[in-house]
Amino acid sequence: MSDLEAVISYIDSHLEPALERLFALLRIRSISTDPEFASDCVASANWLVSDLKGIGFEASARTTPGHPIVVAHDHGAAGPSALFYGHYDVQPADPLELWERDPFDPWIETRADGSRAIRARGASDDKGQVMTFVEACRAWKAVTGKLPIPVSILIEGEEESGGVNLPPFLKSHAKELTADIGLICDTNMWDPATPAIQTMLRGLCGEEIVIHAAERDLHSGFYGSAAANPNHVLARILAALHDENGRVAIPHFYEGVPELPEVLRTQWDSLHFDAAQFLGAVGLSVPAGERGRSVLEMVWSRPTAEINGMGGGYQGAGFKTVIPAVASAKISFRLVFDQDPHAIRSAFRDFVKARVPADCKVEFAEYGASRAIRFPIEAPAFGRARDALAAEWGRPAVFIGGGGSIPVTHELKQALGMDVVLAGFALDDDRIHSPNEKYELESFHRGTRSWARILNELAH
Amino acid sequence: MSDLEAVISYIDSHLEPALERLFALLRIRSISTDPEFASDCVASANWLVSDLKGIGFEASARTTPGHPIVVAHDHGAAGPSALFYGHYDVQPADPLELWERDPFDPWIETRADGSRAIRARGASDDKGQVMTFVEACRAWKAVTGKLPIPVSILIEGEEESGGVNLPPFLKSHAKELTADIGLICDTNMWDPATPAIQTMLRGLCGEEIVIHAAERDLHSGFYGSAAANPNHVLARILAALHDENGRVAIPHFYEGVPELPEVLRTQWDSLHFDAAQFLGAVGLSVPAGERGRSVLEMVWSRPTAEINGMGGGYQGAGFKTVIPAVASAKISFRLVFDQDPHAIRSAFRDFVKARVPADCKVEFAEYGASRAIRFPIEAPAFGRARDALAAEWGRPAVFIGGGGSIPVTHELKQALGMDVVLAGFALDDDRIHSPNEKYELESFHRGTRSWARILNELAH
Repeated sequence: MSDLEAVISYIDSHLEPALERLFALLRIRSISTDPEFASDCVASANWLVSDLKGIGFEASARTTPGHPIVVAHDHGAAGPSALFYGHYDVQPADPLELWERDPFDPWIETRADGSRAIRARGASDDKGQVMTFVEACRAWKAVTGKLPIPVSILIEGEEESGGVNLPPFLKSHAKELTADIGLICDTNMWDPATPAIQTMLRGLCGEEIVIHAAERDLHSGFYGSAAANPNHVLARILAALHDENGRVAIPHFYEGVPELPEVLRTQWDSLHFDAAQFLGAVGLSVPAGERGRSVLEMVWSRPTAEINGMGGGYQGAGFKTVIPAVASAKISFRLVFDQDPHAIRSAFRDFVKARVPADCKVEFAEYGASRAIRFPIEAPAFGRARDALAAEWGRPAVFIGGGGSIPVTHELKQALGMDVVLAGFALDDDRIHSPNEKYELESFHRGTRSWARILNELAH
Repeated sequence: MSDLEAVISYIDSHLEPALERLFALLRIRSISTDPEFASDCVASANWLVSDLKGIGFEASARTTPGHPIVVAHDHGAAGPSALFYGHYDVQPADPLELWERDPFDPWIETRADGSRAIRARGASDDKGQVMTFVEACRAWKAVTGKLPIPVSILIEGEEESGGVNLPPFLKSHAKELTADIGLICDTNMWDPATPAIQTMLRGLCGEEIVIHAAERDLHSGFYGSAAANPNHVLARILAALHDENGRVAIPHFYEGVPELPEVLRTQWDSLHFDAAQFLGAVGLSVPAGERGRSVLEMVWSRPTAEINGMGGGYQGAGFKTVIPAVASAKISFRLVFDQDPHAIRSAFRDFVKARVPADCKVEFAEYGASRAIRFPIEAPAFGRARDALAAEWGRPAVFIGGGGSIPVTHELKQALGMDVVLAGFALDDDRIHSPNEKYELESFHRGTRSWARILNELAH
């Protein structure tokens, strides 16, 4: 039996304790965006440090102005080095009433067909995915006493909150962290049977706007129509974000956005993406975005503007005839190709300011800024990772685009000069950021096996 | 000393216990719109019944499908009868953090100039105003053993929640309740020195709309622009409510809205309303409504559409890249002259439905419907009430319009055929429906004296 076969066999026979470890991590309420859960973020970091030390890593939780960053090294092997990145923080779990159970009390759901899913906030994004890599390392160390290649691990706690602390940390620890290739497990399979390596990611620019009008809430009977209503001002601004064809109407927004290169268009066409099924799975049927674009283009290669949250005035039960003093919205832009998040932010703010009447004031707050990214799929590490995935899943891995942002991917390229293999085992129906998030037990198990194979392949 | 003089003197020397009674009523959290406070509404009604019985009224709390209605009678006197109407329910007190103190723990604020204000939710709207009438009755009974005229009192608990239970109650109790004149204390003075009788009131039509898109919240990175975002749909609908001149853009909205009659325009012009001060008092300076209309027209004689509340998606601290499944808004229309609230509701719903894309659904909920109302200022009771107010305040009372809705006024006219004298002692800066609501101690004291005089005058 080869080392790899022994490692795979070890993974198969030790799935139960691996799950117990994942459950322990999922129980920690590491919601990074809400200051109330800061101590849970510290607890998550400490749990990971302790677990990685148990495997044999030299590990520590590094303090930052925000949540701690876990760094671990095992440089016992020779060969090309890898830096694995993941994040231990999770999205808020609200609305809690839509969860079948406590989002931080993970459970296994067994379906009629025998398949099983791990359900909890963070099960897929990203604790479950992170632990596939950690468990692969554990198996290699348990079976052979060492890893196939030198491995560093970096697990941050501010991925879900547009954290500003990772980029300076990467820069100030460039020597310690730089490796020959980056590995990230925070993406999806193409479908439940087809592994995928994501080679394009959209960037992100997040903004919050707060419209202030009167100095206090007013009675709409006494002041209605005479007094500026910030709900109206906000609605007009938000409605103006898109034109009648679904294009973002902010001037210069599409600068740096080319048409999709022909080679990618051809490859993506061959994926036979089923837009009806994609939308149908969430109860929709009509693509809402830019007229004349395919759904795959919309979510992989076109920029977007989405209102993630908005609110003003009375939202409780019943009715209150009030003109609020304040209304606010959170808006995120997904960026592609060469769009500059800072230019977008500036153009958006000008767009908003031009629509705020004389009597109102606007405040802005920024939440993250990252460019889109594309990797050179012809580089050797990409081929090796693809081979390893093909061996595990019995079919070739596909190179895909992706809608979400993983800002660190850009930072790794920018600050450390590293290309990154984005290989993840999440599925489209994992409900990440939503109630009843899940990770397939198969994703967890075969994801662990996949990383064991990738580590082996990268050594050659 | 005449009876009236003795009564006025009694009121002056018994202000302290009158205040204690008002404070007891203000401590009851009778928020009618929120089911959580249903038992507080019952407690308010019971408190009033007990207090009115103490004065000598035959009083009881009548059950309804909603909150109870207090009815009291004292028909010991001869002469034309009066029905006084008020409401014991109050608006929600949120945002609580903007209150200087607990909104349901009333306190007296003494200012540098020696003037004093009663602060609490409901201090002005309407518990303080209701108690001016109750205390006037108490003084008459204490001093003379009877009231100057037969008096019935009706105090409901659903005025702030568009309650549907009063109209059928009025109809089914028409014989018991009908009187020669209605009296309502739920309006403002023209200014702190000038009493006013309101002879025009706007009507109200309240609507809530809920936009549903995907069956669950989605990740905006994965679904952004492809999936319908109900925040966008809602913003577009709300932005379309007004045209670029501030006119409501719903078809047929202005049917039944004539230009202001010349006689009223002349009288209103003579009031020398200070629009700059009106807006300046709440930190504003630019009238937001229909271009070409005065602020007084906007708030007294023009219809409005106001977004009282709206919300969708993530509104907590930080950022969440979500596309919500649902977004909603509460909209109220103030109606004037002959606008039909039911026609407005229907036109609004058509307007909304026409703007909901194929992939979304809309739900509607209605909150109240009342027409605007105008009283015949030449009827004798109006002149008598005006004389009584002039005697108390040392200057003529002015006949004014008003922005708020008091649906019962219309119901009294419609169901019982009664005209209503709307004489209130609230001031424009009472912050009703807002944090730190207050009622001037002077309003409470001289309001009580005013009702004592009006009761006396109506007997002649």
